[in-house]
Parts: sequence; C-alpha cells; structure tokens
Amino acid sequence: MTSVDMSRSMPDSDLARLCAPRSVAVVGASEDDRKFGGRLLKYLVKHGFSGDIVPINPKATGVLGIPAYPSVAAAGRPIDVAIMALPAEHIEASIADCAAAGVRFAVIITASFAEAGVEGLERQRRILDIARSAGMRILGPNCLGLMSPHARLALTPSLSMERPDLPRGGVALVSQSGALMGTMFDYGADRGIGFSLGASVGNQVDIEICDFLDFAIDDPNTRVIATYVEGLANPLRFLDCARRAHAAGKVLLVTKAGRSEAGVAAARSHTASLAGSYTAFSAACRSVGVMLFDDPNSMVEVAGFLCEAPSYREGGAAVFSGSGGGCAVALDRISEIGFPIAELSEATKASLDGVLQESHRHLPLDLGVLQGGWSRANIAAALERTLRDPHVGAGVCVLTTQPLMVETVEEAVKAGREAGKPVIIVNLAGSAGDASRAACRRLGYACFDTMDGALRALAAISFVSGAKPSVRGTVEPTAVPPALDGRIGRLTEHEAKLLAASAGIRVTREIVAVTAAQATAAAEEIGFPVVLKGVSKALVHKSDVGAVKLNLKDAAAVDRAFADIAQAFSTHGIAGFEGCIVQEMGHGEVELFLGAKHDPEFGALILIGIGGTTVELLGDVQVALAPVSEHEALAMMKRMKLWPLMDGFRGRPAVDVTAAARAASRLSELAAGLGPRLQEIDINPLLVGARGAGVIAVDGRATMVAGT
Amino acid sequence: MTSVDMSRSMPDSDLARLCAPRSVAVVGASEDDRKFGGRLLKYLVKHGFSGDIVPINPKATGVLGIPAYPSVAAAGRPIDVAIMALPAEHIEASIADCAAAGVRFAVIITASFAEAGVEGLERQRRILDIARSAGMRILGPNCLGLMSPHARLALTPSLSMERPDLPRGGVALVSQSGALMGTMFDYGADRGIGFSLGASVGNQVDIEICDFLDFAIDDPNTRVIATYVEGLANPLRFLDCARRAHAAGKVLLVTKAGRSEAGVAAARSHTASLAGSYTAFSAACRSVGVMLFDDPNSMVEVAGFLCEAPSYREGGAAVFSGSGGGCAVALDRISEIGFPIAELSEATKASLDGVLQESHRHLPLDLGVLQGGWSRANIAAALERTLRDPHVGAGVCVLTTQPLMVETVEEAVKAGREAGKPVIIVNLAGSAGDASRAACRRLGYACFDTMDGALRALAAISFVSGAKPSVRGTVEPTAVPPALDGRIGRLTEHEAKLLAASAGIRVTREIVAVTAAQATAAAEEIGFPVVLKGVSKALVHKSDVGAVKLNLKDAAAVDRAFADIAQAFSTHGIAGFEGCIVQEMGHGEVELFLGAKHDPEFGALILIGIGGTTVELLGDVQVALAPVSEHEALAMMKRMKLWPLMDGFRGRPAVDVTAAARAASRLSELAAGLGPRLQEIDINPLLVGARGAGVIAVDGRATMVAGT
Repeated sequence: MTSVDMSRSMPDSDLARLCAPRSVAVVGASEDDRKFGGRLLKYLVKHGFSGDIVPINPKATGVLGIPAYPSVAAAGRPIDVAIMALPAEHIEASIADCAAAGVRFAVIITASFAEAGVEGLERQRRILDIARSAGMRILGPNCLGLMSPHARLALTPSLSMERPDLPRGGVALVSQSGALMGTMFDYGADRGIGFSLGASVGNQVDIEICDFLDFAIDDPNTRVIATYVEGLANPLRFLDCARRAHAAGKVLLVTKAGRSEAGVAAARSHTASLAGSYTAFSAACRSVGVMLFDDPNSMVEVAGFLCEAPSYREGGAAVFSGSGGGCAVALDRISEIGFPIAELSEATKASLDGVLQESHRHLPLDLGVLQGGWSRANIAAALERTLRDPHVGAGVCVLTTQPLMVETVEEAVKAGREAGKPVIIVNLAGSAGDASRAACRRLGYACFDTMDGALRALAAISFVSGAKPSVRGTVEPTAVPPALDGRIGRLTEHEAKLLAASAGIRVTREIVAVTAAQATAAAEEIGFPVVLKGVSKALVHKSDVGAVKLNLKDAAAVDRAFADIAQAFSTHGIAGFEGCIVQEMGHGEVELFLGAKHDPEFGALILIGIGGTTVELLGDVQVALAPVSEHEALAMMKRMKLWPLMDGFRGRPAVDVTAAARAASRLSELAAGLGPRLQEIDINPLLVGARGAGVIAVDGRATMVAGT
Repeated sequence: MTSVDMSRSMPDSDLARLCAPRSVAVVGASEDDRKFGGRLLKYLVKHGFSGDIVPINPKATGVLGIPAYPSVAAAGRPIDVAIMALPAEHIEASIADCAAAGVRFAVIITASFAEAGVEGLERQRRILDIARSAGMRILGPNCLGLMSPHARLALTPSLSMERPDLPRGGVALVSQSGALMGTMFDYGADRGIGFSLGASVGNQVDIEICDFLDFAIDDPNTRVIATYVEGLANPLRFLDCARRAHAAGKVLLVTKAGRSEAGVAAARSHTASLAGSYTAFSAACRSVGVMLFDDPNSMVEVAGFLCEAPSYREGGAAVFSGSGGGCAVALDRISEIGFPIAELSEATKASLDGVLQESHRHLPLDLGVLQGGWSRANIAAALERTLRDPHVGAGVCVLTTQPLMVETVEEAVKAGREAGKPVIIVNLAGSAGDASRAACRRLGYACFDTMDGALRALAAISFVSGAKPSVRGTVEPTAVPPALDGRIGRLTEHEAKLLAASAGIRVTREIVAVTAAQATAAAEEIGFPVVLKGVSKALVHKSDVGAVKLNLKDAAAVDRAFADIAQAFSTHGIAGFEGCIVQEMGHGEVELFLGAKHDPEFGALILIGIGGTTVELLGDVQVALAPVSEHEALAMMKRMKLWPLMDGFRGRPAVDVTAAARAASRLSELAAGLGPRLQEIDINPLLVGARGAGVIAVDGRATMVAGT
C-alpha cells in the first residue's frame, strides 16, 4: 500500500467525530448482504448505532425499511460520515456529492487505487483534491472502515461483524490491513477481549495510522494500542506518537510486515546487510519503548491481557499446573526465553502445609498433588500463598484436561488481582476447557490457548516494565573536515578515516604512497612494523583479494608488498589502482565493528557489532537511532552475545569499553549531525585495547552524497 | 518419574490384547463420576466398548446397572484387563487378587509410588514381584490408562472422555504424562484429528514407552506416532524403535521434557556446558530421523496433518490468502524458518488470466483480487493452477475473516490432494472461521489456528522428507595407548594428546620440562618458536591464569616464560605445578573444537564446533552419536553457522576440511571404541590449515574412568 502524508494541512484533525458520528450515510446501501453495501448497512443497524442512518441508493426509496436518497446532497441534512463501497469509477462523483453536501469524513472501502498502478494513483489524487478543497477528510481507499464499540458503531463490511456483539473494552486496533483488523477483532472478541476501536487505514491517502494513534492516546477508553503496519506515512511522527503514548501511560504494540525484505535489500552493500528497513524500524521502536510482535493475533491476545492483568514489576515466574507434564513443558519453554524462574521462600513453603503433599511444596506447583485430593479450597490457598511470595513476580497457570478447571481459573485470576501480580492462564485443553475459557471471559480476563501465546505475554510484561523512551536532544549540524569538502561518492579508506578522526576517534597514522619508493619512505617515517593496503574506490573488501599486507618489518618487506598488491589488483581485474596506504600497525584485544547509516525513514542509525571481518557471519550487531550517549552505547555493547569477550572472559584482559563506547557515541553524533549527506560509514575493525589503552580505527569505508 | 526396564523378561510382549481386550474389570467401580472409579466405568460404557465389562466393588451388587463382584476372583471368568483406581494402600491386595484370577494386564491409575519417595518405591517393587510371578503385565502406576478408538475402548478416567466420541484415525499418542495424553487427545479431536491409540505409561514399572511404540509401529491403523517423553526406560531400545518406525514408513514425533536441565547440569565442566542430556537426546533423534517438538499440542496438530496431507517432496511454499496482510505476515514468518518460497513459472502466470487481476498473477497469491470479485470457481482455478506449478512444493492457505471461507478450505484441500502436494491451512479468524474449521473436520484434514502451528508443520514436512536414519556398524573396542594403561581421572594435556594421537590425529611435538633448564633444552630440540604451558591436573583453563606463553623465539624468552608461569601458579594459588610442556608452535587458519563425551543414556557423542576458546560463547556446536564417518563429520561442519569461515569466506583460504572431518571421525571412533572408560575428551583448538596442510591439535583435555 502506498501513502501520501498531507494530513497536517487538513481540517478536522480530531477523529472524535469520525469515531462517534451523529449521522452516517451509506453510499451504495443494499439489501443484499453478499455485497459490501449490503453488509455495511446491515451491520450498522444490527450493532445498534443510535445516530441517524441515511442509505444512499439511486434505485430505491428505502433500504431495510430506512428511507433512502439518490445522493447525499438529496438527503438534505448534515452528514458527519459517508461510507462508500462503489465500483472505483463511481467514487469520484460520489466524493464530489459528499463534498458538496458538507460531509466531514468520507470512508472509501473500494480498492483499485494507488495499489493498482498509475491510473489508480491518478484517481486517488483527484479524489483527494476534491476532498481538500471542501475541507473533508478521507479514510481509505482500499480499507475496511472502522468500528467503535463504545459508540456501538460498526462502520465496516468485515464479516467479523456477524458476531452477536461488539465487545467494549480498552484495546484499540489500528491496522493498515482491513482483513487483519477484522481477524484480530474476531479472534480477540472470542477470547473475551473488549475493544475501544478497530480502524483500518488502507492506502492512507489522507487519514493515516498516526492520526488514529493520536486519537487512541487521547481516548479515555483506550489502555493498550495494537497496531498492524505495512508502511508508515510519517515515520518521525510515529516516534512522537510512541513517546506520547508512553507519557500517557498507554502501551503501544506493533506488528510490522516486511521483516524479510530487510534481508533482500541488504544484498548490495556491506552495511546494508546489517541494517535494512526493518532493522531501522525495530531499532527505532526499541528507542521509543514500542514492543514488536511477529504475529497480529498474538499481539491482540497480549494486548487484551495487558489491559486487564495487574502490571508486572519484578520477580520470577511461578508455574502452576494440574499436570506434572504441563509444569515441565512450561518450565522448559520459559527458560528458553530467559524469563527468571521463581523459587519459593521457606516461609511460603511452610504456609503450604495442609495444602500440598510435603514432597511437592515447591515450584513448579503441581496442583495434582493437593492434600486430600482435588479441592477448590486447597487450589485457592496454594495459588494465593504462592503469589504472595516476594520472589514471585508473575504466575503462569497451565490448564490441562483436569478436574476443577473453572474453579482453578477463577481462583487464579482472583489470587493474581489480590497480589497485584499478573497471572498468565494457558488453557491447553480442547473443548474440555471451554467452560473454563468462558469463566475467563466472564471475568474479563484474556486467557491463552497456546504456550506460544503465553511466552509472548511473559516477554511483553517484562518489556513493558522496562520500556523507557530515550530522550532526544537537539542534534547540532556537523561540518565535514575541510579535506573532504565537496567530496561525494564512495570515500577511500583514508578519507573515511579522516571523517572518523574529525569526530575525535583515533585512527592509524598513515601516508598514501603512489610508488614503492614512497611507500618505503613513508614506512621509515611511521616506524616499523607497518601495514600496506591497496587503494582503489572500486574495491570494497580489500582483504578478499590479497590487497592487505600486515606486519611488514623492514623496507625490503614493504617494497615486496607494494609489488604484490599491484599484482593482485591486476590479477583480479580491479580498476583504479591508486597506490597504497602505509599505515601504523594497530594493536588491540578485540575487534569491534562500528557503523552508521542514514535510513530514509528514521535518519541516522548507529551499529555496534563484534567480530571485525566476521561480523556478518556472527550477526552480533546492535542498532539504535543516532545519536546515542556513551552510556547508551555501553548498554548496546552489553546486549551483544559476545560481550563477555570484552569483559574479561576466560582470563582475557578486560578491554577499554569506555573508550569503545565513547567512539561509538562520537560516530553516532557525527552521523546524526551530517544527516543524509553521510549515507553510511563503517569502522571495521576498531581495535579495542586493554583497559586504559584506548581504541584505534584501522580500517574504514564511507559513502557521502551531496548535501541538501 | 522413575522407571525400571524389565519388560523384555515378561510375558505378553504384544500389547494387542491390552488395546483390544475381550473383557475389562474396573476395580473400584462407582456411580460417582467425581471419583476415578466412577469416571472409568462411565466412560467405558459411554464410548461403546463391546466386550465384557465387570465392575468390582465389595459394597455393591451392581454399578450403573451392571452386575458387580467383590473381587476379580469372585467374578469367576477370564479377565484380559483389570484397571484400578484405589487408595495406594489397597493396590497390593488388588494386584494379588488379579494375579490369582489370571488377569493378563493390570492398569494402575493410583499415584504415590516411586515418584513419592522410598516407601512408594518399595510398594512399587512389591506389586511388580506379584505380577511377575503370575505372568501378569502392569501399566502404570501413576498413569491415566489408555484409549483405543478403533476398539471403542475408553480405559481412562481422563476428563477428555467427556467428549461425545472417540475419533478414529491414524495418530497414536504415547505419553508419559496422563494429563498431557488427555489434553493432546482433546485438543486434537477438536481439530478433526483421529486417533489409533492414546496410551499413558506413568511410572513405567513394567510396560514402557517403547512397548507402545513397538505396538504402534506394527499396528495397521497407525500412520504417525506422537510421543511425550520425560525419561526413557531404555534409550537404546528407543533408537531401535525409531529405526523400525522409519523402515515401516511411519513418522515418529517426540516432545521431551527437561530440555532446560541441560543448561543446569552443564555448570560443572567445560564440555558439559556443550552436551547435556537433552543435547544427547536431540543428537540421537537426529541420527535416527525422529523430529523433536517443544510443545505437545503443536506435535499433535502436526501429527494429524502429516496423517492426512499428501507427502512433501521438494519445491517452495506458495502462500495464498484473501488478505494482502495475511500474505505479508505469512511470508515474513516462512522466510524466518528458511523454508524456500516458490515463484510461479510464466506458464502458470499465463494460466491465471481470467482468474486474477493482471497485476496480481504472482506469489503470494492474493485471493482478494480475483477477476470479477469473489467466486468459488476462480478460487478453485487459482489454487489448482498454482499448486500444479512444478516450482511449488507445498501450499500455505491463510484464512482471515473473509467471504467464501468454507469454499476456500474445500477447494484448497481438493487442489492439494489432486496435485499430490501438502497444503497447510491456517485459520486466523475467530468464530467467524468456525464453519470453515468444521469443513476441515468433515474432510478429515487438520487445520491450524496459528501461524506458529503452520510453521511447525512446514518444518515437519521438510524434516520428514529428508529424514534418513544413519546406519550404525559394529563398534570395535579400542585399547588405550600403553603409556596411559591404567590411567584414570583427569589427564594432563600431554596425556590427552597421546590419546588423540593414538587415534591418528596429528598433535604438536612436545616435551615435558620440570625445570627452566630442561625447558630451554627442549625448545632447542623442537626448534624455535615454541609455546610453553604450565602443567597441573588442578588447572582446567590454562589461558585464564597466564599459564600459556606463545611464540617464544629464543632460549632467554623460554627461560623467562618458565619463571612467569611458575609465578602465575603461585599467585593464583593453584596446587600441583608439575613444570611446563614445551611445544611446537602450531599454525592454522581456523580454530576448531573437537570433543567427545560419554552420555550415560546414548553412549559416545561427538561434538564439532568452531571458535576455539570462544566456542562456549558462540554456541556453534554440532553433536551426533559416535561414531560418525568422515562424510557425516563434514555434513556436521557444514551445519555450523560459521562454516563459511572454513569455506573461503571473504578471501580467506579454503581450509583443509577433509583433514578436519577425518580427525573428527577418528575421534568419534576412539570414543565409541573406548565406551564409558572415556568420559570426555576435548581437542581445543584443533588448528585447521589451508587446503592440503592438514590439522594439528594444539591443546587437549580428557577424563578417563576405570574400565568395566
């Protein structure tokens, strides 16, 4: 889906009237519910919308017993919202009709606009022009409308409206896909989740995702926002929304399609293989405290859970099950995601005397070995005393086909609420568990049908408890060093290092030599041993072709190396041999990769990885929005899987992580300050010395484009 | 749960009579279905068991209208199976009653046996003795019995029997946990899956998992076996079962509890952190073509699917959805697991003229853009023509809330069966999808409610199509080299390398020196540069304490290094300084880790990893049952994430992988040949030189125990 961001210049920036209109016109209303226009009217009536309903149909005087009009203008009364599902070729006229009649919001279900090629894009532009000149806003086209349960408004032809009710609650759905909006709503409503909004935005010609996010953030009914995104109309506005949601105490969850594109787009360049568009999106989300999901239905389940369950603060998970097998499977899977497992205090164990058999007064709690057999009282006591334990931060209650399922669910929800701790209920049974699922719904508590879902909930409570958007200061524009003034395109290694040095990062001393004689002279000046590297703008990976010679100890070695490198260029058919860099031989304990990249959506990103030339294979790279402080850079390094290599692993020296973090922070400031002019820069490797010995950049690449 | 393997010495090794008995006695039969004995009788009657039902209850002359007897003996007729749910203290007498009456199988539901401490273990032994002497077999105790749908036999108090029917089909469930057996059955039956068996084995005092596996492998009704394992009574018999299942064309799936124990048990020793019990189990399963799951319900879903869907052979996945969002989410997730994504041939695209809008005749197939709108005929044509494409190996049909859901499901199943290709149906809708779920059930086709489940199915069809149990030859016992005769305990590095050398692996030339003078003399003999390493049995990680000095270029350096190492031992308080090994300086391009370990269940394992001393951090280790051939060792190396480092990555030399594979194979033969005497051996690093340059072991550790 494509999108145009013009929303800021439009009137009616508040969507309250769209989500709670006084009057709705259904253009193309029909009595045939196999048609969009038929279902639209049917659902609007069925779900009890109390405002004025105005069917528009040139061929009928009434539809479903409601007086109909040939046009919106002919209806002769104020219309807040007109929704239309007409053939694409009739939309333009209908929009003109609405504009003339002073309609405030037009919702266009019809497809075949921008997503269907040039002709559709033109049509989309024309309707936008008409709407703009009349001050009317547009939702869609190519969307499935919206639902607003607190207003009893079903303004969508989605078949999910076949359900008997529109459950009201605190989850707002904002979805680019109409089918997924309906699906998430249907899936969630079955699980007892109530909604404050279900909005689909389709092509986002005018109203876009962030408009609904702003609405939901301000909406007192909304507590959690679950968003399905394909492409953002305004990425930086999205970051503002995320910060605003956090400040308002609301949780923002996102599923983004196109995660696998990152891999595809990464093929061309070195850094592109580390940071593609989804990488940027996910780094941005982490920076503003937004949790990402890989699955829309799972996101909704978790949203419903977060809405109703007490908040998690700290402590381990306590697993309860009527089945020893259920306990074992749950523990295995919880361990895998790294959520801490609680152990009971001795006092709690003692308090379970009379409740559980002596051999079983520990976590996981096997509710199958209650003293005196299954009883509600003992289940209640076991859950309540365990959840009160200060080591326990959350409960995971795994139901199998077992006695007292309903009672177990009721006691688990009660005990969790009393202890002020979230209890995740996983109902693994089939229809034998339906009565206990119904009990959850009665209690307004979302339960999970799979361990997969429960694990996502555990990950979510942990994420939400720790999420804190970073505060961004103003970024000062940075000037390139004079030697690079006006340089655009791929820089040489030497130029890339000049850029790094201008940010205050130590680089190897080096002299460019065009002849072997210059090279030996340069080596004498720098001091042996030295490194020789062939120079050509055409060569990305120097070590791949034998164009790097390390540890040259005397003039003869330098002379030979120069000749060898020249020969290697010729052998590999690489154009533009410009000589060699003669370079001080750097030393360090660990090879770090530092990169920055300009993302077209989110601006400068900073990348920190371990492994030098093997960084791509290891994939151990952290990404964040630039700039980052030294403190943030250090936190990024600590999230690397191979962080122990920097921290004194197995007798290695602890390395100068302070200097490494400082270099990363400075590079991030450089990238943020240069903005789009610096397309990308890699320092690889940055050698990190022992504590106090600092860092040194021994190789680098960069690409600049003309400033704007 | 604990277990004793005595089954081989018992009569009635065939469980056919247990699974299809002519007569069943219910000991403790009751009319109160809150009691185990009440539910047992109720379910037996309810599900239509046609054999003789004999309630045993000393206080009643009839239960549920069926004549009852005070004891099995008093019933005065042959009883194939007696099932009992009595207080633990009454079991022994009841078993004696059954034994005296010539009962062939006793099923004990009652718990509080071996799992509840010493007293229970004693009780368990006594009942086994009684049964043995009478030639009676025991299932349980601490189990939930079994169900045998083709015999209409519900021999279990599981509440899953509340469902109206026992769906018959080709999935055999064999579960150590009774609650999970009932849960998997209930969950699967709801999804249209039919079963040939549901067996729970509990404490496995006599009949164990492998008895049921053998039964299911020979059972003509069974096509797929889904097994939940906590502990195997006889691991090697399990491997035989797996090979037999594969030969019989049946698929064996396993979920094993205790996966996270591997991490816990790993704390003590170096190699233990790489290979624990679950690691061994999973290596063994891979070797015999068994697919592992992390979740019992997911395993059952996939089992049902494999039972009914055509087999996958080759080709990519074709995604269909009525929602563009559904397509996008599915593609992202399929890409993540590495299943190939299909592209349509030009001929197939052309064949979609008239079916799909021109802009959308490609994969993923958006069924929302059919030409002329939603129609069954176009859906049928789109699915059928796409699945016929030779590039397409499997279909993934993602249903959202959309029109024609039932029709889409019916056409997808039909098209898949006609093309002979598996089609995975994922129904993301809530109750709006119930009619289409029912359609799947009518067609005897398992559908998935989550993308998580669908992904496991894709992984499974790929695994099953490639699974081929390795053939094990006879392992020749190996003698230790004479120098190590009688050596037990932790070997020195030098001794460990003697052992490696005895298997034909090249090790560094080295001389043990007790004094600095001996060290310099040894260095002169070996030739400079040399390496010095401090020797002590108390020291595991030499490099951690500065006890390794590399690249010593002359006698003075050796002399100084010797003193430094002696000092380091003293500084770190390490006992038993025995001098230094003076060692040839090895060279290579890549550091490999080779290990072998004796697993108490599965015998010798071979481990191959990359990263030398960082192998633990990288976790890039492959494990297999030893011995492995050179070919198998090479295949293991190619599965390593960092394999490209050995294969000419970024201009590095391609290394001598043949020599590395040969060394791994030889080490695996050594370990298999020495059996439990060699507890573990690590060669770390094994330096692998450029192609043709061979390998050299530069460090090693090993632990031997007394031979048996």
